[in-house]
Amino acid sequence: MSKAGGDEGGDGGSGETSQQPEDKVPAVSKLSGAAIGPGWTKVSCPCCVSERVEPLVLVKLGGKVRPETKRWLIRLIGAPQKDGGAALLAHPGEDASGDIIVVSAPRCTLLRATEELGLCKTYSNDNMEAFSYNDRDNFKDSDNMEVFLTLAERQYIVKYELDGLRAQRDLRVPGLSDSDALQHRDNIWQKLGSAGVIVDTLPLHDPDKLKDLSEAWYSGNQLAQPLDSVNGYFGSSVAFYFSFLDFYTWSLLPPAILGLTIAYFSGEVQKDMDKSVSGSQVEAVDSDSGPAVGGHMIQAVFSMIWSTVVMEMWKRRSASLSYRWGTLHLAERFAEPRPGFHGEVGVNPVTGRVEPLFPEWQRELRMALVSVPVVGLFLGMVVLGMLCFYWGEAQVKELHQDWDSMLSQTLIYMPSVLHIVYTNMLATVYKKVAQSLTEYENHREESAFQNHLTAKVLVFTFFNYFAVLFHIAFFKQDVPLLRKRLASLLIVTQLVNQVTEVVIPFLVDRFISAPHRTEHKDDPQEDKFRNQSTLPAFPGLFAEYIELLVQFGYLSLFSCVYPLTAVLLLINNLTEIRSDAYKMCKLFRKPFSPPVANMGVWQIAFEVLSFVSVVSNCWLLLLSPWLQARFQEGGMSSTNILLLAVLVEHVLILVKVILAVLIPDEPDWIRKKREHIEYTSMQALRQQKLQPEES
Amino acid sequence: MSKAGGDEGGDGGSGETSQQPEDKVPAVSKLSGAAIGPGWTKVSCPCCVSERVEPLVLVKLGGKVRPETKRWLIRLIGAPQKDGGAALLAHPGEDASGDIIVVSAPRCTLLRATEELGLCKTYSNDNMEAFSYNDRDNFKDSDNMEVFLTLAERQYIVKYELDGLRAQRDLRVPGLSDSDALQHRDNIWQKLGSAGVIVDTLPLHDPDKLKDLSEAWYSGNQLAQPLDSVNGYFGSSVAFYFSFLDFYTWSLLPPAILGLTIAYFSGEVQKDMDKSVSGSQVEAVDSDSGPAVGGHMIQAVFSMIWSTVVMEMWKRRSASLSYRWGTLHLAERFAEPRPGFHGEVGVNPVTGRVEPLFPEWQRELRMALVSVPVVGLFLGMVVLGMLCFYWGEAQVKELHQDWDSMLSQTLIYMPSVLHIVYTNMLATVYKKVAQSLTEYENHREESAFQNHLTAKVLVFTFFNYFAVLFHIAFFKQDVPLLRKRLASLLIVTQLVNQVTEVVIPFLVDRFISAPHRTEHKDDPQEDKFRNQSTLPAFPGLFAEYIELLVQFGYLSLFSCVYPLTAVLLLINNLTEIRSDAYKMCKLFRKPFSPPVANMGVWQIAFEVLSFVSVVSNCWLLLLSPWLQARFQEGGMSSTNILLLAVLVEHVLILVKVILAVLIPDEPDWIRKKREHIEYTSMQALRQQKLQPEES
Repeated sequence: MSKAGGDEGGDGGSGETSQQPEDKVPAVSKLSGAAIGPGWTKVSCPCCVSERVEPLVLVKLGGKVRPETKRWLIRLIGAPQKDGGAALLAHPGEDASGDIIVVSAPRCTLLRATEELGLCKTYSNDNMEAFSYNDRDNFKDSDNMEVFLTLAERQYIVKYELDGLRAQRDLRVPGLSDSDALQHRDNIWQKLGSAGVIVDTLPLHDPDKLKDLSEAWYSGNQLAQPLDSVNGYFGSSVAFYFSFLDFYTWSLLPPAILGLTIAYFSGEVQKDMDKSVSGSQVEAVDSDSGPAVGGHMIQAVFSMIWSTVVMEMWKRRSASLSYRWGTLHLAERFAEPRPGFHGEVGVNPVTGRVEPLFPEWQRELRMALVSVPVVGLFLGMVVLGMLCFYWGEAQVKELHQDWDSMLSQTLIYMPSVLHIVYTNMLATVYKKVAQSLTEYENHREESAFQNHLTAKVLVFTFFNYFAVLFHIAFFKQDVPLLRKRLASLLIVTQLVNQVTEVVIPFLVDRFISAPHRTEHKDDPQEDKFRNQSTLPAFPGLFAEYIELLVQFGYLSLFSCVYPLTAVLLLINNLTEIRSDAYKMCKLFRKPFSPPVANMGVWQIAFEVLSFVSVVSNCWLLLLSPWLQARFQEGGMSSTNILLLAVLVEHVLILVKVILAVLIPDEPDWIRKKREHIEYTSMQALRQQKLQPEES
Repeated sequence: MSKAGGDEGGDGGSGETSQQPEDKVPAVSKLSGAAIGPGWTKVSCPCCVSERVEPLVLVKLGGKVRPETKRWLIRLIGAPQKDGGAALLAHPGEDASGDIIVVSAPRCTLLRATEELGLCKTYSNDNMEAFSYNDRDNFKDSDNMEVFLTLAERQYIVKYELDGLRAQRDLRVPGLSDSDALQHRDNIWQKLGSAGVIVDTLPLHDPDKLKDLSEAWYSGNQLAQPLDSVNGYFGSSVAFYFSFLDFYTWSLLPPAILGLTIAYFSGEVQKDMDKSVSGSQVEAVDSDSGPAVGGHMIQAVFSMIWSTVVMEMWKRRSASLSYRWGTLHLAERFAEPRPGFHGEVGVNPVTGRVEPLFPEWQRELRMALVSVPVVGLFLGMVVLGMLCFYWGEAQVKELHQDWDSMLSQTLIYMPSVLHIVYTNMLATVYKKVAQSLTEYENHREESAFQNHLTAKVLVFTFFNYFAVLFHIAFFKQDVPLLRKRLASLLIVTQLVNQVTEVVIPFLVDRFISAPHRTEHKDDPQEDKFRNQSTLPAFPGLFAEYIELLVQFGYLSLFSCVYPLTAVLLLINNLTEIRSDAYKMCKLFRKPFSPPVANMGVWQIAFEVLSFVSVVSNCWLLLLSPWLQARFQEGGMSSTNILLLAVLVEHVLILVKVILAVLIPDEPDWIRKKREHIEYTSMQALRQQKLQPEES
């Protein structure tokens, strides 16, 4: 049996761990108090010994994993870092040969990782400061891990340590064939995953905390979300989504009130429209974009300015939250590269550590020469599909007019069906391609990887959603059709999302999975853990964010037509908060959530959309027949109307740019804190240079 | 006789200085070797004693200053900082009661100020690192001030220390009336200036270095400028101007080559135009914007993309220069506030020092409620003046047609003359108003003050230059008139600038001032210094930068009409470099030049102009009759042409935005160095927290 990492130093510090056979009953602790077979691995440092060990993460092993492999893995997890281990605590579960390992983390490992990740914690002077292991005693609560770090942070640190395991030299894993042998600097967790040893790594729910959280979150009639608890339980990336949802929902109030006011005052025009709906087609089309365009222009201009102000205010809110949650100074750039990163081993010029290096220009070259063309190709295929759809539709209509039979009647739906199938297939293929492309780009940081992946999928999804709409708006120039399309798309999307995301999982959970998973109080702890792994994996926040983005796009694009869009979205989002919260808590496995300082690429997506909306809004207003009629009454030529629209557009964009520049991205008090930290680090750097001389 | 600052500690450390009467012949050194009366004040720290003291700065006193005031001032300059002095070296000049004081700086004062300003210097590992006084021995050449700091830096530090002198308690200046008594925390240099004691503070030329520099800069036929020497002698703000001038001039090569090519290939069209010039007026107008519009469109699109690429590349070059000149990490924010800053005394939350504080929101309020409306008012007055001019011109023309007499003939020039007088008066008043407004805004840092002042004057000047042009382009829509106006404006401006900036000062210098200033080798050093103070003060770089900006605007605005603009500008700029260099070296006093990390607000001005040019170019192309004729041949309606222009404009702006985002603002190697510094400061901060425990 071989131990991961250099055996040279192994007998020193890690002696305890490596000499402990798994069948000895350990003195330290048990799996949550229940007396079950073999216990936790021993901790290697005396300060970390504690009475209670909290199970944090469940590692599910493959069915065919042999006991010696499991023993080796447990020992690896428990071994100190200098011996290539993860310095965590492992528990083999009730049955030593069972297919799970429960992992926890001792205090020292947690604290060191907190420093490495660059998390900020409350210092003795009540400021949030970047945690320093050496200075741990000056941070509040640093002796009680369950208060000092949130559950999400503790679990993420366990995953971070496991993911970071690298073979310190070539070695053979006991119980595995030679083809799965590890080579020097191989990522162990990835390798074991592809060898089928590790099936899954998942964070465990804490039933008591979950109960408290769900009561405060969605059970009552409360309007405010318990965002700090969400951050504590689910981590900052989830908490940022819910904070944004919250912020965005409440910021819908001003446009909703304005919309209601305008709808009230334009009641008479509304009645006119109601009449004309029963009138001729031409009249209906005319008034379709007609109701109180004057009021709607006010609303359009208001909502264009509003969207910039909201996004700028959100940036400030986001900075405050990030400070509050201690993620303002994340040091991901300075930490170890992400597991999938590869490159020539060399000295990192920034940190001076030996690690794989990959030149920036090569990454940029790959993006420019591979990623961009491939993404462009797929976008082209979306357009191609759309054109084929229009062509096919025209052909089939012609055919139907010529023949007019049952066959041609059914044929008329063919193009739509084919288009939907084509689009879905394309989306599925694209997602895989985007994943491979982003992996090929070889980003060093996990956040960079995620941002580039999200950006790729986002561009495609958005294009997929909106290509048809832009086609209708800019080429067909058919506002009523556009409005119908958008409305149906929005409603269908919202409904489909609610059904696929909440209702189906809920039904599956209630009637199919749950009966197999009924928990009794006296069930062994292990079974409860195992139950959690049967829940479907959390699909990530992409679908949630894109839903908001499409909403936001709808609101910006159509602010000039429906006065009540904001009101409807406000109501929708109030239910959305609850259903999303329910989903997070009950229907899916708990996800790992890395600490993040903001919404990442979504922030940019919303800002870009807010600028694009000016162009589209001005264009749509221009198309409105009501407006054109008014202008022509005033004796303006269509060229002059166009010029006026262009002028208005430029002024609006200018105003938005000026607003975006003028509103600072962080509140004044955060700027002061940040500058104070910069100042003290500058001073510290000067002091430090002196140290070698003095000491 | 009272000494500035607390007398309590005065007898300790500053004993030497304060006990030295000015009539004792000092042992330390003389004014550049010449044996002249009383000598330099003694240095207070042993490591700063040096054989040679370099005269750096000349302080000119008022004619009526009494000897005791001068003695008090010399003692103040020489006193250590803890006693409220400037810790510099002062020399009363040949005649102890004369009207000059020559100031130099000892090593320790220079080094401490270098740290305070955040200048970077070469470390022992050949990297540029922020200088740290405690770690001075590890910096290269830190024992030889004339190599370690540039002349410009040494002189700026002297000014910085003199400007920073504040009264440590209420005191009466000997020889002055009670009304000029200093109060606690009063800025001494400002107060003495307004009391008429100090007339001027100017840095001294170094004749040998100046000779070397001018030979390398403009005497020969060399193409490259000695930018490092310029930075060393004149300081980084001047060096940045010349670097930008250099970079911009060379980057004119691609558009110049393209322009020449297009001009060559469109030779035939050119001939057509030559013919038509002798033809009818209508034809001339037609072909006026006609020559090879196809080629010119290529050039217009090229130059719109080119301007963004050039500005992005300049940012990178600027970052490299800033690293090279050690100004990448200026710590102005963390240093003492600028002399004119006032506010409630309190603890700075960033640095923890006691100093005047002024809340940010109050400054923003002042900007929003006072500065912006006042600037807007002046811009409105420019527009009003322009409208009055047009109205007056129309009136006068009518009058002339009615009467047609000599009187009405002269009257016809009245509107232009009045307009020019009005514009000039407005500009003069505005400059004073802008100065007061910026002072009222109460900026903490000198650079912020300068940037806000420059921005105000810049907006006004630019508006003043271009309001008429925009009026012609967008309202009159008269391209030939616009072109004539622009061409004459540019040529007139260039000529007037060259004359007022170079020729007149040169003539004045040669024939009026110089005869009184002929220097002989055996003249006393002091007279040479005094001679320098008779040169006119350097008027600052504003006029130089605005000249470039107008050029740049001309190139962007008119790239679609003249193919040879870039060629002409290239030639003009090659002479401009020399004439500006000559001017700097010979015709003006040497200016103090604060260390800066970039061009400040000018950078933004050029970038904004580069975006505005897209709008104006697309508009001008649209107006071109040639293009309209071609499109109408192709059967496009004017609305569709307009739509096409708007589309092209949006695409170009999008391309420019993408380019600006994609091209990183700093070269990769600088990013790595910066991140390395961030990493080491983070580490140092963690280490430092530990110090109190260990030591």
